Amino acid sequence: MRILSMQPKGFRCCAKNVGIKDTTLDFTVIASDVPAAAAAMFTQNRFCGPAITVGREHVSNGRLQAFVINSKNANVATGEEGLANVRELVGLVAEELNIESEDVLPSSTGVIGRQLPMEKLRQGIAGSGQQLQYGHLEQAARAIMTTDTYPKMHCCRIGNATLVGIAKGVGMIEPNMATMLAYFLTDASVDPEQLRVCLKEAVEPSFNMVSVDSDTSTSDTVAIMANGLAGEVNLADFRQALQDMCLRLARELARDGEGASKLIEVTVEHALNAQQAKRVAKSIVNSPLVKTAIFGSDPNWGRIAMAIGKCYEQDTIVPEKIDIAFGCIPVYHRGLAVDEGHLSALKNYLDHDEIAIHVSLGLGEEQARVWGCDLTYDYVKINGTYTS
Amino acid sequence: MRILSMQPKGFRCCAKNVGIKDTTLDFTVIASDVPAAAAAMFTQNRFCGPAITVGREHVSNGRLQAFVINSKNANVATGEEGLANVRELVGLVAEELNIESEDVLPSSTGVIGRQLPMEKLRQGIAGSGQQLQYGHLEQAARAIMTTDTYPKMHCCRIGNATLVGIAKGVGMIEPNMATMLAYFLTDASVDPEQLRVCLKEAVEPSFNMVSVDSDTSTSDTVAIMANGLAGEVNLADFRQALQDMCLRLARELARDGEGASKLIEVTVEHALNAQQAKRVAKSIVNSPLVKTAIFGSDPNWGRIAMAIGKCYEQDTIVPEKIDIAFGCIPVYHRGLAVDEGHLSALKNYLDHDEIAIHVSLGLGEEQARVWGCDLTYDYVKINGTYTS
Repeated sequence: MRILSMQPKGFRCCAKNVGIKDTTLDFTVIASDVPAAAAAMFTQNRFCGPAITVGREHVSNGRLQAFVINSKNANVATGEEGLANVRELVGLVAEELNIESEDVLPSSTGVIGRQLPMEKLRQGIAGSGQQLQYGHLEQAARAIMTTDTYPKMHCCRIGNATLVGIAKGVGMIEPNMATMLAYFLTDASVDPEQLRVCLKEAVEPSFNMVSVDSDTSTSDTVAIMANGLAGEVNLADFRQALQDMCLRLARELARDGEGASKLIEVTVEHALNAQQAKRVAKSIVNSPLVKTAIFGSDPNWGRIAMAIGKCYEQDTIVPEKIDIAFGCIPVYHRGLAVDEGHLSALKNYLDHDEIAIHVSLGLGEEQARVWGCDLTYDYVKINGTYTS
Repeated sequence: MRILSMQPKGFRCCAKNVGIKDTTLDFTVIASDVPAAAAAMFTQNRFCGPAITVGREHVSNGRLQAFVINSKNANVATGEEGLANVRELVGLVAEELNIESEDVLPSSTGVIGRQLPMEKLRQGIAGSGQQLQYGHLEQAARAIMTTDTYPKMHCCRIGNATLVGIAKGVGMIEPNMATMLAYFLTDASVDPEQLRVCLKEAVEPSFNMVSVDSDTSTSDTVAIMANGLAGEVNLADFRQALQDMCLRLARELARDGEGASKLIEVTVEHALNAQQAKRVAKSIVNSPLVKTAIFGSDPNWGRIAMAIGKCYEQDTIVPEKIDIAFGCIPVYHRGLAVDEGHLSALKNYLDHDEIAIHVSLGLGEEQARVWGCDLTYDYVKINGTYTS
């Protein structure tokens, strides 16, 4: 039994192509050798898929032993048949792994409105129990990809334990309560209720602060299993490690947003409350006019002002108290444009591939930070032909 | 004195280039021979420009005699100097026309964050009183354009009176309470309070239902002058005519949305209330994934389901009660995708330049209809280089 240095103990996986759409990896099973404490969060989209329904049921007792995930088909808007299909898949995987069906959390991502190709999936599941291998998580990170350009995976140590996380995006991304798909595995021993709290705390300032295109997926899932094989860890260290990893993966989702050429980070400070800060920051990062200006390195900072101002319901917002800067370059100061001499510096700054926008509302002490990406020709190209 | 057949009596205008950005028309004055009953609605954007501030003041008594409008510079985020500049311009125009300053409504549209080139505007205003001509409104419609590809103007008769409307879009367009810029002139005699009510009624189902890019301008203004020179008209006829014209102009703004190749009309029916219907319809018409799929004629209707479902706060929405159709082609029926045989018909339908999406929520009796446009390479191009 070979354990890669930076992989948690007792997790095996297999990733394969079962032919759902093409010949790339489209199916993965990740299993713990023993039942694990578990927590998960799911999309708030009201058209959520049956995998979400089953996942909610199965994680409700705080215990899981396997994730089974397919890409290339979201199994959404597929009615009773879609739900029966998920239950069958979960049962087949449980049988293969000789574990309880209720300990399997399923996910599907891809096109909406088509039934899963069950015969291909049944054939793919057959024998997968024997194919599980320790390590190999990068293959799993690859198998869950749709339009991602590279697999997203991070590892870290917490005392004697290891935490690993994988995630995929990168279109239909404005998560609410969870992101597209992200999975965490650890061999730390953590109580299920603590795990649930840690996950919730980590997701809000990370995945829930990402928006690639303001569209919230029907399949968002973030889930964690802690199998305890490395024993107890300091809980504060674990919380911090999970938060840091969520943040790193969330930034990567934004950076790899469909067609993106630049990462945009918006920080809104001195808001009256955290909700106001998030509302304004999301308004900026989601504005197609802001996103296209950044793509074109056009120093049209007035669009930031527009995006702040269109948060009508924030009736405490007053232009005369607001500051706007790109990186360290101030462009607007409490009612007035800063000297236009800054525009050439701004134009140079906009040629970078990470653009930081800072806004102070001048009202209070709260802040929010969100991540997104520019809107490019490639976003239009990718999404004009997704199913064609 | 020559009056064009379909122009209201007693309105003159001049449109010219004063050199704000390039050599295209960028300045227009529209004046009534006599003081007119007037009403106006403005953007709710909290970064609104000083022209909005002055316009609100001047229309508050229900009387106006002239509109003065410049394009190519929005005069927004320009502080006290920007406000003083508007007051000076309005005063100069009033002097030229020998009318009261308080009877002039100013508007500015264009780039945000730059002071108006006052010397050029002063020179442009000088002599404009002499240059006013009856008719010539199409030139005014042209002078208020920014990225519009053609001037938008409609006329109709109401009894002995005439109503004419001009409007411009076409980016930063998700109006709230008014649209980018639209002006109506009539020689009907209408009481100012009635005029205000008629305008409000007409704007909500038309301009407020348009979204080109979900970005709400800082300069939205819709204003009407009724100078009474054609006498009384049937008020019900006038209301209907104004509503029809707002609707036609609103559709045109959507069709001519920046970079648009297709008009999208979304109708949401059987909603619990009008607010829910509008919320869901806007969610669909604003979804970048829906917009790009329509651009690419990709029959990826699942994105409509996603856009309905992401209205989380509408907790009455249930997929099993929902129907979705494109034109007459049903794609989703109460929980299930309609037979995939429809996909080729759908693909053909998507090649049209007007795409109608029908959604029934299956909950109640209310409905909403909104208009938008597809998201194309040209939108990215236009907005990546707007000020550069």
